[in-house]
Amino acid sequence: MVDRSVGTVARLLLALASASVLPAAAAPPRTMAEILAASRPEEWRRLDPDLTVRLELPQGVVLIELDPRFAPRHVDNLRVLIRARYFDGLAITRVQDNFVVQWGDPEAERPEGRRDLGAAEANLPPEFSVPWQAAWPFLRLPDGDGYAARVGFSRSLPVAQSRDRRTAWRIHCYGTVGVGRDTAPDSGNGAELYVVIGHAPRQLDRNVAVVGQVRHGIEHLSALPRGSGALGFFADPRQRIPIRRLVFERDLAPAERLPLEVLDSSSPSFAALIEARRNRRDAWYHQPAGHIDVCNVPLPVRRVDAE
Amino acid sequence: MVDRSVGTVARLLLALASASVLPAAAAPPRTMAEILAASRPEEWRRLDPDLTVRLELPQGVVLIELDPRFAPRHVDNLRVLIRARYFDGLAITRVQDNFVVQWGDPEAERPEGRRDLGAAEANLPPEFSVPWQAAWPFLRLPDGDGYAARVGFSRSLPVAQSRDRRTAWRIHCYGTVGVGRDTAPDSGNGAELYVVIGHAPRQLDRNVAVVGQVRHGIEHLSALPRGSGALGFFADPRQRIPIRRLVFERDLAPAERLPLEVLDSSSPSFAALIEARRNRRDAWYHQPAGHIDVCNVPLPVRRVDAE
Repeated sequence: MVDRSVGTVARLLLALASASVLPAAAAPPRTMAEILAASRPEEWRRLDPDLTVRLELPQGVVLIELDPRFAPRHVDNLRVLIRARYFDGLAITRVQDNFVVQWGDPEAERPEGRRDLGAAEANLPPEFSVPWQAAWPFLRLPDGDGYAARVGFSRSLPVAQSRDRRTAWRIHCYGTVGVGRDTAPDSGNGAELYVVIGHAPRQLDRNVAVVGQVRHGIEHLSALPRGSGALGFFADPRQRIPIRRLVFERDLAPAERLPLEVLDSSSPSFAALIEARRNRRDAWYHQPAGHIDVCNVPLPVRRVDAE
Repeated sequence: MVDRSVGTVARLLLALASASVLPAAAAPPRTMAEILAASRPEEWRRLDPDLTVRLELPQGVVLIELDPRFAPRHVDNLRVLIRARYFDGLAITRVQDNFVVQWGDPEAERPEGRRDLGAAEANLPPEFSVPWQAAWPFLRLPDGDGYAARVGFSRSLPVAQSRDRRTAWRIHCYGTVGVGRDTAPDSGNGAELYVVIGHAPRQLDRNVAVVGQVRHGIEHLSALPRGSGALGFFADPRQRIPIRRLVFERDLAPAERLPLEVLDSSSPSFAALIEARRNRRDAWYHQPAGHIDVCNVPLPVRRVDAE
C-alpha cells in the first residue's frame, strides 16, 4: 500500500523546489474548494469577448475560449466564418461515446448543396504544432507524461513542449476544441469543429489544429444522445442537433453576455490546486495518488459578479 | 514535428522484445479493424452468465462483468443483493459530468425509509488492493504509467501491480464499476455502485473496492442528463432514473440473455491491437503517438453469433 510510481524521487525534488508546496509546518494541506475560496481577484483572468464564442443549442449555451497562439491561421479563418454567421442553422452531426461531439454542415460533402464558405479559406496549411514563444507563460507539470517530453499549462490551457522547448502544441483533454479535417493535412478550415467528451484522446495531439477549450456548458455536449452510425454520426438526419447560432460574445448585447473568468495557470492558487489534486487530503481519500495526469487538473471557471 | 517523448528508447527496446511487434518485413502494420477481423475464435472469451449483470434502464440495457478477484467479499455481497433483487425499483441518483454515474437507494440515509439489505452485510473490510496470485494472467503494458509501478491487463481488465508484483488493484478507466462508500474505509457494501463516465479518475485507485467493468451499453449511462445538485446528484427527485431491474444473466431465460464475448487480453490479437493504437498507421494520422495510456487501450466486445 506504500508502493510508489516511477519518478517519484524526481517529482519530490521538483515539488520541493516549487512554490506550490509549503512546508508542513507553515500551512496545512488545503482542498480545492478552500484554495478557490482563498484565491485573490487578480489570480483570475476575464475571458476576452473577442475570443469567446457562444454556441447556442436547444439544450443550452456552451462557451468556448479560442486561443490563436497554437493555430493562428485556423483561428483567423474560424473568426471569418463566425462573423459571417456561417454556423447558424447548421447542426451537430456526430456524437461518439468516449470520444467527440462534432458539428458543421451536414451537406459539406455535396458540392451542390453545401453552404458557401464566403470569405473564408477552404484549405489551410497544417498548424499541428507551433514554435514556442518566450513571452508565453508556462507552468510545467513536474509529474511527467508518456506522450510528450514536457507538459503543463499556458493561459489555463493544457499544452505540451518538445524536449528542446522550441516546439509546442495543445494537448487533447476533456473539453478541448479542434478542427476536423479529411486525410490530407491541409484539408481543415474550421468549418467543422469537434469537442472532446471522453478520456483524453492524446493520439490526436500533433495531428490536428486545436483552436480552443470549452469553458462553460460542456454538459450540453457530453450528455447528447450518441449517434448510432459509424464513428458516432447520426444515422437518421432527424437526430442531428440544430445549432441556433454560434457568435462571439463581443457581438452580443452586454446584457446577453455570460461574463466568465478562469483561474490563471500562472497564479499561486493554480499551483496549489495542482498539489491539492495530486495528493488529495480530503478525509474521504485514504491513499493519496502521488501523481496527477495533465488532463486531470481542473481548470476552474466562475461567473463574474454583476458589475 | 519529430519530437519524441520520455522513455522512447526504453519503450522501443521493450517493444522489440515483445511478441506484439513484428519485423516490418514480415507484415505491414494493421488497423484495429483488420486485427479484429483476422482474430481467431479462441482469442475471445465468453462472458460468464454467473458474473454478468444486466442493468435495465428506460434508456436501454447495460451489461457489467463482475470480477471477484480484486474485491472478493464485495462481489460476494453484491451477489447477495442482486439475487435478492435489492436494486429493482431503486434509481440512478447521481450523474456528475466527466466523472461518474451512481445508483442505489435514494432513501439510504433515512434509517426509517431505506430498503433492507436482507442477508447482505452492511459493512465490509476495505478491499482496495489485493495480493497478486501467480495464476492470474497479466499482459504488462510497457509504456509506463505515472500512477503505478506496473500496469497492464488481466482478463481484459486494466490492472496495476506494485513494483514488487505482490499487490494488485483495479485501475479506474472509462466504464470501470466501483463500490460507493462514505468516509470510513469499511463503509461500502455494494448497495451503492458507480461507473466512470469521464477521463480516468485515477485518484480513486486504491481508495475503493472495484467490482467490475461495463461491457455493453455504457452510452445509456454516459449520455444521461447531468445532475444539477452538488457532486452531480439530482436536485429534484423526479430527475432520478428508475432501475427496472438489475439481474444476473444466469437468472434470465436463455432467449432474454445478450451473449457477449471479449477479446482476451492474453491473446496475440490483443497485443497487436495495443501496438496498432500506440502508433496509428491509419492514413488519417500523420504523427504516430509512440505511446499509449492504459485507459486508451480498447477492450473489444462482440455479440456471440446465434448458436
